Amino acid sequence: MHKAHDVTIENVPDAAIKQPTDAIIRVTRACICGSDLWPYNDLPDTPGGQPMGHEAIGVVEEVGSDVHHIHRGQLVIMPFGYSDGTCPICHEGINTACPNGGFFGSWETGGAQAEALRIPQADGTLYPIDVDQDDALMPALLTLSDVMGTGHHAAVTSRVRPGAVAAVIGDGAVGLCGVIAAKRLGAERIIIMGRHQPRIDLAKDFGATDVVSERGEEAIARVRDLTGGYGAHSVLECVGSEQAMETALGIVRPGGAIGRVGVPHYAPIDGNGTFFKNVVIAGGPAPTRAYIDELLPDVMEGRIEPGRVFDRTVDLDGVPDGYRAMNDREALKVLVRP
Amino acid sequence: MHKAHDVTIENVPDAAIKQPTDAIIRVTRACICGSDLWPYNDLPDTPGGQPMGHEAIGVVEEVGSDVHHIHRGQLVIMPFGYSDGTCPICHEGINTACPNGGFFGSWETGGAQAEALRIPQADGTLYPIDVDQDDALMPALLTLSDVMGTGHHAAVTSRVRPGAVAAVIGDGAVGLCGVIAAKRLGAERIIIMGRHQPRIDLAKDFGATDVVSERGEEAIARVRDLTGGYGAHSVLECVGSEQAMETALGIVRPGGAIGRVGVPHYAPIDGNGTFFKNVVIAGGPAPTRAYIDELLPDVMEGRIEPGRVFDRTVDLDGVPDGYRAMNDREALKVLVRP
Repeated sequence: MHKAHDVTIENVPDAAIKQPTDAIIRVTRACICGSDLWPYNDLPDTPGGQPMGHEAIGVVEEVGSDVHHIHRGQLVIMPFGYSDGTCPICHEGINTACPNGGFFGSWETGGAQAEALRIPQADGTLYPIDVDQDDALMPALLTLSDVMGTGHHAAVTSRVRPGAVAAVIGDGAVGLCGVIAAKRLGAERIIIMGRHQPRIDLAKDFGATDVVSERGEEAIARVRDLTGGYGAHSVLECVGSEQAMETALGIVRPGGAIGRVGVPHYAPIDGNGTFFKNVVIAGGPAPTRAYIDELLPDVMEGRIEPGRVFDRTVDLDGVPDGYRAMNDREALKVLVRP
Repeated sequence: MHKAHDVTIENVPDAAIKQPTDAIIRVTRACICGSDLWPYNDLPDTPGGQPMGHEAIGVVEEVGSDVHHIHRGQLVIMPFGYSDGTCPICHEGINTACPNGGFFGSWETGGAQAEALRIPQADGTLYPIDVDQDDALMPALLTLSDVMGTGHHAAVTSRVRPGAVAAVIGDGAVGLCGVIAAKRLGAERIIIMGRHQPRIDLAKDFGATDVVSERGEEAIARVRDLTGGYGAHSVLECVGSEQAMETALGIVRPGGAIGRVGVPHYAPIDGNGTFFKNVVIAGGPAPTRAYIDELLPDVMEGRIEPGRVFDRTVDLDGVPDGYRAMNDREALKVLVRP
């Protein structure tokens, strides 16, 4: 990506091992993320451009001398962040804050919307899966790299519990995965807040029980009406905009929690109103690596179907148009087969 | 209290039943709260003054016609907020956000630094205790009205768990009760952040394992040093000042939680830094009514001794000097025997 609305496919130097803990993977599936649309709309002119893509499944092509658990030829899920897997922060399950970690989609690692990229901390980062690389579950497995794990993080940090009323702000791929996650964790009611009919239909398939298509104060009033005036126990904030956060603060119940997974594009949070309502503000970049253990069996056995968020497939040359289509809301989420 | 630094004891009209759900209690023990020092330092000139005091134990003198569980003659703990005890929010344990609730220390209810006061929602609010009104445990029982329950709330909302590293910001009565609560919930290390030797000594008696007496950036650096560079899992923010909140944000570990119980006197909270560290911001006015069930047995059986936070006792006429003494940090917490 060279600047806003300017994505091109270019030849770059081959991905290569730099550290003994690195691996190289050949990408078999990647995708375009809702968070890629932020730079797609506001990236300043960037000389040399920026490699894009942070979600992938791929085959390990090469490993460094200090990689012991990952082997050539393995099919692996690449979570959107890399992490050593051995530090106290990783052991506590917050891989995305690993002091030796970082995020894919930079010149440091390369991007996943590519033929191959470098994986730092390969042992801690990659998650081998024992399926054929063209298995029908590939789209679902690919969501464990980011969107399904991120929706799950929104549900976990907003403390969805059996019987809870959950409200999901945003009908993008993460919001829809948030619906799956809220249902999976036992929410009794799931309010999807969005206005795009095909996405709303999918949300209902995933378990949404109520739809709120209003915005701003009207949306807040509607959620309050639906909840006896009290608001939702769990608010999954899956957008990151100022309006989304205002809505979240307006619909959360006293003692409830907001799980934020949309990259914040909002002003500092009022510490007073949240205090007097005993509201919990939680969330952040989802430690999707840590969640694969829990989510993989449900994907493998078809109990959850997050792969349904993909509604278009492109090859590498189709990536620029994939960005356009997602930005125009013509496509929900675009899968890339290099 | 008429204005900052102007507290007088005056005759006011007798407390009287206004609603059928009211009770009147005669106060046998009350106290001065750290939060009373905010208006003691900044209350504007208030014609007619403001009744003060929100913590009490007392004897029920009279009940309204719609009070069914509280009876004349019972000795009761009065939590600092009143609540109906029957709404969904109370059932969820957030009594301090009850839509029919409020706080003591106003002309609406009267204050507890008095001979008697009106208790709205008596059935939901008052907690009968079966002990003699001059029992040696009175100071400890009185802390269940506010400071012990508030310290516990800081520990619960900052998610203290067995093995956790907890940091307690503030060496006032709430902070010291926070140390008791963190120890009680299994914290492995408890860092008390304060600088008043007698209070630090008491914190150590209560279970603090480390002391940080620096402030600002130096305090943050010290806590990081003590925690391998990672910070504390649980930060009990028991002050409410700008500096206290900055310290909390600086010492909390990625994935950790800040439990705020000091009334906020700070700017809105940076939503970006907390996001990228996956930090949880929680807390608020403690639902002390809901916590009595859990804490009372430990008080009755002497397993916790929160009554030790009282280091001075006054009668009603001694209340003005009690404020002065607490404000000058000559007294930690002043008990009032009307």
